[in-house]
Amino acid sequence: MKGKVYLVGAGPGDPELLTLKALRLLRSAEAVLHDDLVAPEILKLIPSTAQIHNVGKRCGKKKILQGEINCLMVALVASGLRVVRLKGGDPLIFGRAGEEIESLRRNNISFEIVPGVTSALGAAAAVQIPLTHRRASAALVLLTAHRAPGKDASEKDTSDWSKFVASGATLVIYMPGQNYSDIARRLTAAGLAGETPCAVISRATTKFQRTHRTTVLDLHRAPQLASPTLLVVGEVVRLADPAAVVEEFGVPDLSPGKDRVLPAALFSTILSQAPHLGADEEPMA
Amino acid sequence: MKGKVYLVGAGPGDPELLTLKALRLLRSAEAVLHDDLVAPEILKLIPSTAQIHNVGKRCGKKKILQGEINCLMVALVASGLRVVRLKGGDPLIFGRAGEEIESLRRNNISFEIVPGVTSALGAAAAVQIPLTHRRASAALVLLTAHRAPGKDASEKDTSDWSKFVASGATLVIYMPGQNYSDIARRLTAAGLAGETPCAVISRATTKFQRTHRTTVLDLHRAPQLASPTLLVVGEVVRLADPAAVVEEFGVPDLSPGKDRVLPAALFSTILSQAPHLGADEEPMA
Repeated sequence: MKGKVYLVGAGPGDPELLTLKALRLLRSAEAVLHDDLVAPEILKLIPSTAQIHNVGKRCGKKKILQGEINCLMVALVASGLRVVRLKGGDPLIFGRAGEEIESLRRNNISFEIVPGVTSALGAAAAVQIPLTHRRASAALVLLTAHRAPGKDASEKDTSDWSKFVASGATLVIYMPGQNYSDIARRLTAAGLAGETPCAVISRATTKFQRTHRTTVLDLHRAPQLASPTLLVVGEVVRLADPAAVVEEFGVPDLSPGKDRVLPAALFSTILSQAPHLGADEEPMA
Repeated sequence: MKGKVYLVGAGPGDPELLTLKALRLLRSAEAVLHDDLVAPEILKLIPSTAQIHNVGKRCGKKKILQGEINCLMVALVASGLRVVRLKGGDPLIFGRAGEEIESLRRNNISFEIVPGVTSALGAAAAVQIPLTHRRASAALVLLTAHRAPGKDASEKDTSDWSKFVASGATLVIYMPGQNYSDIARRLTAAGLAGETPCAVISRATTKFQRTHRTTVLDLHRAPQLASPTLLVVGEVVRLADPAAVVEEFGVPDLSPGKDRVLPAALFSTILSQAPHLGADEEPMA
């Protein structure tokens, strides 16, 4: 079989955050299967001669099953094509790559994995949050708010978060959804103090990027920002770029020429006074 | 002040895993301050007209203090230069970027952060370990084995690891050092079962990449591989590419044409029979 599959990370959104290797592979692809979250500017890099399949789970009205994606990938590569399976961020983090890898191995298909900048890193860079810090956070936890099927507010989910909270690590929650009240409740139930700073970052690294900084206590009042969003939770969020957060809400820079690190209390005030300025076109979940 | 600082992630090692933006910035840099861990092939991309400073903490015999790096960065940018502060992997993970950001803000210096592929993602892609998995691991924890100054085998460190272990998340330990017995002891004390699979990955994504797959129980017998190394711990390590691990030790592929997913037990046998084939030039710590 001469075909080959490349599981490629498309990075957080900005096309300039593609790796050189991802760009090379996209430009020589004969078929591309991509997720919904991959930016249109990146899809434009694919040659017009290549087949392009949107296999996003929310594509159209029909839900594409993981098994169908696996089948399509195998069929394309069996016809001798050079296939790129393009995933938002990094392919090995919350991308179900494990299942695709198993399928490719089972079918004896040659494949290669090309890492990408995962969205937590893109978002943190864009709003200048050091994810680890010698004085504030010794570890970083990447998790998701999606519950496994069949579980709702089960004890297991909550207790998992409580262990992460107790560790004092920075938490980045992928796919937090739009129900911030629920997330805040889970974080509080897990033992997190209400005053812990957190930030919702929407469409990080794209021109549509929007950031809302708040606290766990006030998270339920956060505006509904367009997906994909990420929630960063922990003391390091205090170190976020004040300009990135303030500009978001159209509030003029309060301290020109002064130290740009505003106290967190001032931010809470500004944000609590304008909780709805950040509302977006995304409907509430 | 016309100068600007770019805190740029150089990715895990392979120059093709640089982002397009990192490449553009490196090519137009007037001064570059880089860590020890940045690959020589990447440093070759810097224009010959640029000043290049190795500010790696282990550079030469003298230990460069973080304050000295901050000072140098401020001095270069104050003279109007376009400065790239180049860090291995991603700048916001275990890179002390927090302290550099504080220094830049305090000095009112314009700066931008460019994320990179952090080494955990590079290593996982290279040996095909899905870092999260619907059935095996719902979260990823990035941590470091470096203890804060003044702490040795303190209770606090161990208890932190126990929380991560109890969560069932995949752990990636940055800078595990060469004392694998100590790491294994800490993992076991934290509650991890001896049969938990783990992999030491050395110089991931470079042509010098080497991988040793083992279990927590047998970790103390792992060969001393050249730094930088990473230790990946968790059930997902079972899904690593058998070829990547076997080739490492020069053992021929045992199952041509068959399912390439070998049982973990077979690996333990192969590796326990050849624990010293992977020894490297790196001295024991």
